[in-house]
Amino acid sequence: MMLNVVSFEEAKRITEAEFSSFEIGTEKLNISYCLGRVLAQDIVSEENIPPFSRSTVDGYAALSQDTFGAGESIPAMLSLKGEILMGEEAKTAVSSGECIKISTGGMLPKGADSVVMVEHTEQMFDGTCLVFKAVSPFQNVTRKGDDVKVGQTVIKKGTKITSRHIGILCALGITQVECARKIRVGIISSGDEIVSVENEVPMGKIRDINSHFLAALIKENGYDAIEYGILKDDFDELYSTLQKAADECDAVLISGGSSAGAKDMTAAVIDKNGEVFFHGIAVKPGKPTIFGKVRGKAVFGLPGHPAAAYLIAKTVVLSLLRFCNKQADKELTVTAEITESISSNHGREELVPVILEQGKAQPLFFKSGLVSLLSSADGFVIIPRNKEGLFTNEKVTVHLF
Amino acid sequence: MMLNVVSFEEAKRITEAEFSSFEIGTEKLNISYCLGRVLAQDIVSEENIPPFSRSTVDGYAALSQDTFGAGESIPAMLSLKGEILMGEEAKTAVSSGECIKISTGGMLPKGADSVVMVEHTEQMFDGTCLVFKAVSPFQNVTRKGDDVKVGQTVIKKGTKITSRHIGILCALGITQVECARKIRVGIISSGDEIVSVENEVPMGKIRDINSHFLAALIKENGYDAIEYGILKDDFDELYSTLQKAADECDAVLISGGSSAGAKDMTAAVIDKNGEVFFHGIAVKPGKPTIFGKVRGKAVFGLPGHPAAAYLIAKTVVLSLLRFCNKQADKELTVTAEITESISSNHGREELVPVILEQGKAQPLFFKSGLVSLLSSADGFVIIPRNKEGLFTNEKVTVHLF
Repeated sequence: MMLNVVSFEEAKRITEAEFSSFEIGTEKLNISYCLGRVLAQDIVSEENIPPFSRSTVDGYAALSQDTFGAGESIPAMLSLKGEILMGEEAKTAVSSGECIKISTGGMLPKGADSVVMVEHTEQMFDGTCLVFKAVSPFQNVTRKGDDVKVGQTVIKKGTKITSRHIGILCALGITQVECARKIRVGIISSGDEIVSVENEVPMGKIRDINSHFLAALIKENGYDAIEYGILKDDFDELYSTLQKAADECDAVLISGGSSAGAKDMTAAVIDKNGEVFFHGIAVKPGKPTIFGKVRGKAVFGLPGHPAAAYLIAKTVVLSLLRFCNKQADKELTVTAEITESISSNHGREELVPVILEQGKAQPLFFKSGLVSLLSSADGFVIIPRNKEGLFTNEKVTVHLF
Repeated sequence: MMLNVVSFEEAKRITEAEFSSFEIGTEKLNISYCLGRVLAQDIVSEENIPPFSRSTVDGYAALSQDTFGAGESIPAMLSLKGEILMGEEAKTAVSSGECIKISTGGMLPKGADSVVMVEHTEQMFDGTCLVFKAVSPFQNVTRKGDDVKVGQTVIKKGTKITSRHIGILCALGITQVECARKIRVGIISSGDEIVSVENEVPMGKIRDINSHFLAALIKENGYDAIEYGILKDDFDELYSTLQKAADECDAVLISGGSSAGAKDMTAAVIDKNGEVFFHGIAVKPGKPTIFGKVRGKAVFGLPGHPAAAYLIAKTVVLSLLRFCNKQADKELTVTAEITESISSNHGREELVPVILEQGKAQPLFFKSGLVSLLSSADGFVIIPRNKEGLFTNEKVTVHLF
């Protein structure tokens, strides 16, 4: 089998091309359960908000043209036609020369286009209302549909629902929304040297960091993680577990065994079960990354080194999951100056974790085996492959964790 | 009862002062369940990572001083003492003039301080190993404790646990951690005009946006939200429900009835049940905000206008909850240039939602009753009360939602 190494951008393109016709199913969810889920429909308003024009002050609804020229010395004189309380339907129309008393929130009566504040009026005993200040059209009025109009798309398909979207859904009286089914990601840890975190670590063995690490990352991003445990370097066991995981999940991550060594059998197992599209990405850390397809599902072989596995999952894997999920939520990035120069390998991308401190990005220099540094980082910087590094104070885009 | 209006900063100071001795209680959680929870203990390593110095290459473990001066023409000559495989304990020590064959990841034997790469050596039949390139001390070696040292604090108390923290916990073999108990927030919606989102909206009534809106915000931030439904403007009902909520929760939010009108009884109900510390914050939007204490629990009266309620909950309420939770996670802020000038009221803070687009912050001008704008915002800018506004292209700090 050929070791097919691709660039970081190619990796993204290849994974997306393979799943360009992927359809995640949908499910109808009550708004109490849709926080953090991805919308599978446009939310189009069937209502105007507000449903009618209303007053934003206590005062008198009138035709603005009747008040033009009114002032302290020469008030406009309007004849009072009644009162509209908040919560009442305005049944009487206002004609030129007339006004109706109205409360804050009250429905603007037909004919009126503005409200004179009570402070600028004086009511006479004969039912005349004196207006001492002119109002312009729609002054002191929130117009029907000012916030949302009938037919307006208020939330787009692919949006990850936040608390702020819940607000607008409630405002529109929408209690159920169509969401993308939760993507299920199977996680397999492999390697004779891997022992469970709960156990003592005999000499020469290492703890299974990646299962938990990757599962947490997957869950943090709103997907389901299903752990298939720690497997020995045994072809048949890996083969059958991968098959099971591919049947039960939408994507499978296999950590470890992704290099080209004698005991590295991830690529061969994927190949026998399906197809391998690339084996190796020209990126540091994370070169030993495999992408393939088994029973129509995406399978990634990830590096055994935790920090490398994490960064590749964060970039390449999550990018594909978002693509499959048709997610349109923005990735959070920040522009900052880098505090130290970094020399980089020409010809391959480099992912550098950074700490953000007062608008500056401080790079963390780490070997891919080190996990403590990653936990203190706020994000990472990508050094493009056509750059030989970064200069001190150079502006960089920080991708937030 | 006096209407005690405070500044935005005073509001924060007063709320924190009242709960400065608040103790949230803790619970031990398995690492599978601690994602997003707040650590109630420092995580101190009881191990070195790596636990022993190890080779990062395939080669020969040796004393670096024995290789000084070695080159292509004059190799250093070392006598081979055996081999250490990955996963094996190094039992034989290396003395001056000796070397031991070692694999990547293998344990560095006693005496050796470096590893010569196999590419720079030649093995003779008589057991002599020729070294053609000098190594410096600790070259090709990851030293014991390079990543984490015994006694080192790797995660601080008050940290919100992310997937990256799970990685370091696993690396240290820590499967249980002490976390702050989840803060419970009771939510009461009040007002004769409020109807449930599920129902038809009769003329003059409005949908209950705030219960769901606030509950989602509370959950989104990792706390529990308990909804106590929609109450009429009835003193006794509000009184008894507030008492129940205060008994069952750590904090209570009452939406609506927080102004100073005839039907606004939130302040009076809190006062009768406990104490009101302020009634009104000099901030736009969100002036009608009440803070008090009932049965030792924080109670907030929030504006009925959804966007105002949301922004006050996001700032004043969440700030107190984080304080009570002893949370140390950073608030995410971004520096950006504002795309339009904003004039602001001197004398009170103003919260302006913005959309972030290519590093620029575009302000959304909104009346506090509008909820659609808020759902499209990425964060908000605070205009301080001693400023009369913002100039176009002025640099601002955007607090991300």
